[in-house]
Amino acid sequence: MPNPTAAMLVIGDEILSGRTRDSNMHHLAKELTSHGIALAEARVVPDDRDRIITAIRALSQLHDHLFTSGGIGPTHDDITAEAVAAAMGTPIAVRDDARAILQAHYDQRGQDLNAARLRMARIPEGATLIDNPISAAPGFTLRNVHVMAGVPAIFEAMVASVLPTLVGGAPLLSQTLCVTRGEGDIAAPLGEIADRFPDLSLGSYPFFRDGVQGTNIVVRGSDGARVDAAMAELSKLMSGAE
Amino acid sequence: MPNPTAAMLVIGDEILSGRTRDSNMHHLAKELTSHGIALAEARVVPDDRDRIITAIRALSQLHDHLFTSGGIGPTHDDITAEAVAAAMGTPIAVRDDARAILQAHYDQRGQDLNAARLRMARIPEGATLIDNPISAAPGFTLRNVHVMAGVPAIFEAMVASVLPTLVGGAPLLSQTLCVTRGEGDIAAPLGEIADRFPDLSLGSYPFFRDGVQGTNIVVRGSDGARVDAAMAELSKLMSGAE
Repeated sequence: MPNPTAAMLVIGDEILSGRTRDSNMHHLAKELTSHGIALAEARVVPDDRDRIITAIRALSQLHDHLFTSGGIGPTHDDITAEAVAAAMGTPIAVRDDARAILQAHYDQRGQDLNAARLRMARIPEGATLIDNPISAAPGFTLRNVHVMAGVPAIFEAMVASVLPTLVGGAPLLSQTLCVTRGEGDIAAPLGEIADRFPDLSLGSYPFFRDGVQGTNIVVRGSDGARVDAAMAELSKLMSGAE
Repeated sequence: MPNPTAAMLVIGDEILSGRTRDSNMHHLAKELTSHGIALAEARVVPDDRDRIITAIRALSQLHDHLFTSGGIGPTHDDITAEAVAAAMGTPIAVRDDARAILQAHYDQRGQDLNAARLRMARIPEGATLIDNPISAAPGFTLRNVHVMAGVPAIFEAMVASVLPTLVGGAPLLSQTLCVTRGEGDIAAPLGEIADRFPDLSLGSYPFFRDGVQGTNIVVRGSDGARVDAAMAELSKLMSGAE
């Protein structure tokens, strides 16, 4: 059985304007890979309701899971929860369980659960809350869409609580062979190995370091014995051609 | 006249597996913003011909410009140039000008312009070459699609040579007001200002630093006087509400 696939949707003007460098995509990619879920696509869209809805519909239909980051705070540009509800055709309103979490958080700090903060308790019907151990306002899972905060520390905590609830496949393994030759010199033997191991993914990543030209060859797959076999062949070919 | 819009397509298994953290999107976002072109969307897809073609067609039709990064090297997984040609319905073959550039580069280093390396001279008909000052293999512009390398130093050099050839709008300006209050406390006045300045984009970004909770409020727009006016109103509202 092939591994489940996932997509990620990063939501926020600040990423596309270059103000903020996204780190959530890279974090999620690593976590999914070790959980045996393949991140198959990622998109970044601005804080625009129609664009968010279009992307949520497309990505949640194409993949087993969709993870979103950003746009679930208390301000006017935080429109992710409403857009997810609209995309999935689900009603959304302030939910008692989410309100209780926020009330306890702000009471403890002597802060007011005002109308803006109460927006963070708006959760689509039937969704499961995702715990936010840092600033209380929960994320949620609605069917196969996991809606999480954009602040990296909160995003990472939410990923850590959601991932164990998802069925993963065999973890994707990878091994790297570093050779001190340019990509162009090893392209032919590399292509042969790739043809003979169609179940694996072979990538090559050139580098220039202290005046030395080299290439990292990465073999990826979920069957450890096959990855080992491809690495053995590669090592033989690469040393034979020196 | 509204500013031109652009999309970015990042191509590569290594980004989606979490092996490599992309830095090209953030670089391009900053450069486009200062050139007055709005980055409206970004996508990351794997080294898969159909997925690359689908994304190129969609994004090049939706936006004034599409920038791609990755997949133009000499190995079997470098399929971007072929996919761009297929997506745009343009023939592709080894072109004499590109071959001459590569021949000179490898001659100078005493390396062989072998079949793998010659693939990097395959350029769609009618495309304009983009100079690669680091490893010679050129990128290209085909109509509104700018095809560039994934290695960050090369990508950045290619952006620097392409951007001055594109008509930009007024640069997008931004100003930031830092307040030591939570997003929830300022959401109402912020929403009012956003409503009164519909031509500007207002974003708020919470932070927690040394135990202090605060928010950066960012006002973005291309009309400096309007940005100034919104900032003045914001400062007044924020100090009045302390």
